[in-house]
Amino acid sequence: MTVLEKINSPADLKRLSMAELTVLAEEMRAALIRKVDMTGGHMGPNLGMIEATIALHYVFDAPSDKIVFDVSHQSYPHKMLTGRREAFTNPEKYGSVSGYTNPAESPYDLFTIGHTATSVSLACGLAKARDLQGGKENVIAVIGDGSLSGGEAYEGLNNAAVLGSNMIIVVNDNDMSIAANHGGLYHNLKLLRETNGQADCNFFKAMGFDYRYIDDGHDLENLIAVFRSVQNINHPVVVHMHTIKGKGLAVAERNKEQFHWIVPGGVEAAESGQVPVMAEDYNSITRDFLTRKYREDHRVVVISPATPGATGLTPAFREQAGIHYADVGIAEEHAVAFSSGIAAGGGKPVMMVLSSFIQRAYDQLSQDLALNRNPATILVFWGGLSGADATHLGSFDIPLISNIPNMVYLAPTTKEEYLAMLDWSMSQTEHPVAIRVPFGDVVSSGRPDTTNYGLLNRFKVMEKGKDVAILGLGNFFGLAHTVCQRLADEAGIRATLINPVYMTGLDRDLLNELKADHRLVVTLEDGQLDGGFGEKIARFYGHSDMKVLTFGGRKEFTDRMPESVLYERNHLTPEQIVSDIQSVLKRG
Amino acid sequence: MTVLEKINSPADLKRLSMAELTVLAEEMRAALIRKVDMTGGHMGPNLGMIEATIALHYVFDAPSDKIVFDVSHQSYPHKMLTGRREAFTNPEKYGSVSGYTNPAESPYDLFTIGHTATSVSLACGLAKARDLQGGKENVIAVIGDGSLSGGEAYEGLNNAAVLGSNMIIVVNDNDMSIAANHGGLYHNLKLLRETNGQADCNFFKAMGFDYRYIDDGHDLENLIAVFRSVQNINHPVVVHMHTIKGKGLAVAERNKEQFHWIVPGGVEAAESGQVPVMAEDYNSITRDFLTRKYREDHRVVVISPATPGATGLTPAFREQAGIHYADVGIAEEHAVAFSSGIAAGGGKPVMMVLSSFIQRAYDQLSQDLALNRNPATILVFWGGLSGADATHLGSFDIPLISNIPNMVYLAPTTKEEYLAMLDWSMSQTEHPVAIRVPFGDVVSSGRPDTTNYGLLNRFKVMEKGKDVAILGLGNFFGLAHTVCQRLADEAGIRATLINPVYMTGLDRDLLNELKADHRLVVTLEDGQLDGGFGEKIARFYGHSDMKVLTFGGRKEFTDRMPESVLYERNHLTPEQIVSDIQSVLKRG
Repeated sequence: MTVLEKINSPADLKRLSMAELTVLAEEMRAALIRKVDMTGGHMGPNLGMIEATIALHYVFDAPSDKIVFDVSHQSYPHKMLTGRREAFTNPEKYGSVSGYTNPAESPYDLFTIGHTATSVSLACGLAKARDLQGGKENVIAVIGDGSLSGGEAYEGLNNAAVLGSNMIIVVNDNDMSIAANHGGLYHNLKLLRETNGQADCNFFKAMGFDYRYIDDGHDLENLIAVFRSVQNINHPVVVHMHTIKGKGLAVAERNKEQFHWIVPGGVEAAESGQVPVMAEDYNSITRDFLTRKYREDHRVVVISPATPGATGLTPAFREQAGIHYADVGIAEEHAVAFSSGIAAGGGKPVMMVLSSFIQRAYDQLSQDLALNRNPATILVFWGGLSGADATHLGSFDIPLISNIPNMVYLAPTTKEEYLAMLDWSMSQTEHPVAIRVPFGDVVSSGRPDTTNYGLLNRFKVMEKGKDVAILGLGNFFGLAHTVCQRLADEAGIRATLINPVYMTGLDRDLLNELKADHRLVVTLEDGQLDGGFGEKIARFYGHSDMKVLTFGGRKEFTDRMPESVLYERNHLTPEQIVSDIQSVLKRG
Repeated sequence: MTVLEKINSPADLKRLSMAELTVLAEEMRAALIRKVDMTGGHMGPNLGMIEATIALHYVFDAPSDKIVFDVSHQSYPHKMLTGRREAFTNPEKYGSVSGYTNPAESPYDLFTIGHTATSVSLACGLAKARDLQGGKENVIAVIGDGSLSGGEAYEGLNNAAVLGSNMIIVVNDNDMSIAANHGGLYHNLKLLRETNGQADCNFFKAMGFDYRYIDDGHDLENLIAVFRSVQNINHPVVVHMHTIKGKGLAVAERNKEQFHWIVPGGVEAAESGQVPVMAEDYNSITRDFLTRKYREDHRVVVISPATPGATGLTPAFREQAGIHYADVGIAEEHAVAFSSGIAAGGGKPVMMVLSSFIQRAYDQLSQDLALNRNPATILVFWGGLSGADATHLGSFDIPLISNIPNMVYLAPTTKEEYLAMLDWSMSQTEHPVAIRVPFGDVVSSGRPDTTNYGLLNRFKVMEKGKDVAILGLGNFFGLAHTVCQRLADEAGIRATLINPVYMTGLDRDLLNELKADHRLVVTLEDGQLDGGFGEKIARFYGHSDMKVLTFGGRKEFTDRMPESVLYERNHLTPEQIVSDIQSVLKRG
């Protein structure tokens, strides 16, 4: 029996000797590498947190003591020690846990978390609730140095510091965000690491915290000693520990960014030096286009809120782009306002962001950007209904962005449209523009797109029919096309097929013209229906005789729901759509 | 001729002697007090910025050098010196400028700004655009200590520090937010003030900035000397100056919070010691209710993101509430996540926020709160179409909140409903709840509301009629009632009158029942139509024979548009609504 096999809860951990704890760490590391290489997932962050997690659960008494993990992509060791060991040791149970903390999984998990910079505020709330109720438990937030660039983390620190009671903030400093860190704060963290935490100039002390430094965040004995020293402390304290991202897996320690998150088989691939041959995708298309652009025009700058890899901005691109590339850290609010300021100053900013993260900057899109009508370009990646974790869904960006006045939000359906929109957006000076980068395989029309996108809100009629008009938005244009074909083949209906292009405005002339020889308009959108595109069409026709059928996602947080299930439940298969259309036609 | 009368642009200022500059400051102060007391507006912030603004425009060369004011409620002196003098000296022209910077007014104003903590990021963008284009101008952000609690400011600072080129951040530290400051940072600012900027522990240095301290932010000579010392600096620097909020108006210096913003006549009223007799309003109703609640239940805590006064949390309430009140600074993101954490820990948080500011926390509402289904209560004040500045509109909270899964967003129509909803929300443990606090005069039904709001999405039929059903949401229920009466009186139509109550879900049974003997459903909502309530009704009925007419605001940023104009242009007068209803009925 391995040491790990004895651990069914943190209580089992507390009975181990230091030698056994050391063995446990080795076993956990081996299991973690094995699993993550097989399933894919966050490798580096978890390898770096093994010893600290053991020490936390050794010293503190969870779930009575409360531990909140920021982003929680480093919570795999925590899961291994809190009753979910088999999800990491038994391949048959690998799928039994999510990649983030989840209260539905375990009482040791206090929140469902996947976005950055939230842990300190959430922990602050737990501490306040404790104080109101006269409790005495420890409240601990574990936050990475990368997450510290987020404004919410700072707002939380500012308040945590004056809480006046027990609050332990463990800063897991591995000198990395997803990619390299960016920002003034990181110079201070470096100074603190270099001075063994002794430098006078100390961000955490300036914010009002008591402070401890741990030079080796993989030294179990020292971790335990320091955690013991702050256990039951009566005021807020920061424990700043230096860890190594990817610790114990040589290839991950060498390639920290690449091993932040890996696909299945990523370890072997990297160790054997395989360079994956990438087919053209929307990431490479975007990168190639922007490379050409910044070489032609010195005003161009590409901005990433710390997710360059996910949006195709390779290390080579970043290096070559020089001043034409700015990683602002995990700081979407700043990224949007910064882009607006650049545009106001005559620059050509292109911000690249994932759908799930642009929602962190609603007020900046509204106030800093749209109200000021500055011509920045925002590229929204990964928008659409998907089987992602509940924390990383791409179904909300249409309601979020399209209801902001002055914004132009575009839904390209092909590579050519996408590039023409991007080109237009970067050349115009009147509108803040967002483009929902297509998701999935590259679709090419094979011919250049010469549309003038400055003539706003002109939908494209792709096939002219009658009775039924189908509006297929962005990613769902292909689905609309399929539905059209089926209607023709199966029911002899020659429907009109429309590419709406614009999510922020209606082609009122076209929609009115349809009234002449159509009686049903169908909308298909790859996102949540509530607040989305179809509702605008329904409102437009509300007091006319035109019938409207809207297809898209219902209002819900799905969690790793397979796409086939998701589509089926939302009536998004071609069969279901055709059937729904036919039943409306029969009724009316 | 006064000195001020000679100033038509900053160029005129640069010709003045130090003695004349001093006289100018006096004249500006007198004019400012006179105007603001007559028109209402931000008094304290502007009185504190007179000398610093003179010094900025004396040293720097705007608009070539670029000055960005945070929130910009302290930009009145800037307006006086940049061609808009008469808006402060000539009562007939008092209305000719807005209370915030506005590029449409002047080339010296670079952005329309009214929300907090944006200046550093916007200025960073201007600096980046300058560097891309090889410019040499100075870029200056002016930010108050209160604004420094906002996460966006921190994200901006973190990036400004590593910009590597000219960037001057003037921190206007008057030791006040709107009300008192809260947070660890403020202890550091105090330490810096007390040590004349010499303390080793220095937040700005820890963030990576060069640093200057000005002990007396009203000493023109010193201000000019320090600004000269950083002019054309080749790296980012913070100039931390200590000013006095309300400087030069004794009653404002004594009552800093009260004089942050005053109503017309506020100076005389305060000087004569008048205590305004306040009628019952939704602020006092809320305050009285929450006072009773926290006295009954020790788990209750009221949270304000630095706007206690606007939501009725008087200094007396705050003092008496003790641990049951938490001002978190201008930090809406933290406030929402903190509330979620408190609820998760068994507390009873009630966060009070203005409609225009809740949009600063969309991601926190979604991820930290709604996804976790924690039973926090969010009270949204000032929601509705209004004649406010473009930066403080209350028309976006329905699209923002009601499209987030798991949220329950309620629209009370009377005082009794409001209190019953609040009571229900604080007693239940299943839902994150937001309540749109009614805006305007208190409406009382005269009888207690015994509705069980836990039975979600049950609309209330207030009058049963036929043919036409009118759904009057929240603030607009009264309007719906008026329309009903007019329809009866003028057209003999006895309409069904419905109070929908819920903005986050539909009463599908009721809506289906209406199909039997109604042919038109009318929705009235006090907010933007795009993404709002009426669109959901239109979608629901889209493929049926029911006609739907939606009334609300169009998608736009209005700016101090009189309500009568706003209503007229949105077809929101009873006459217009009745007429629109009749023309649909005639057609169909």
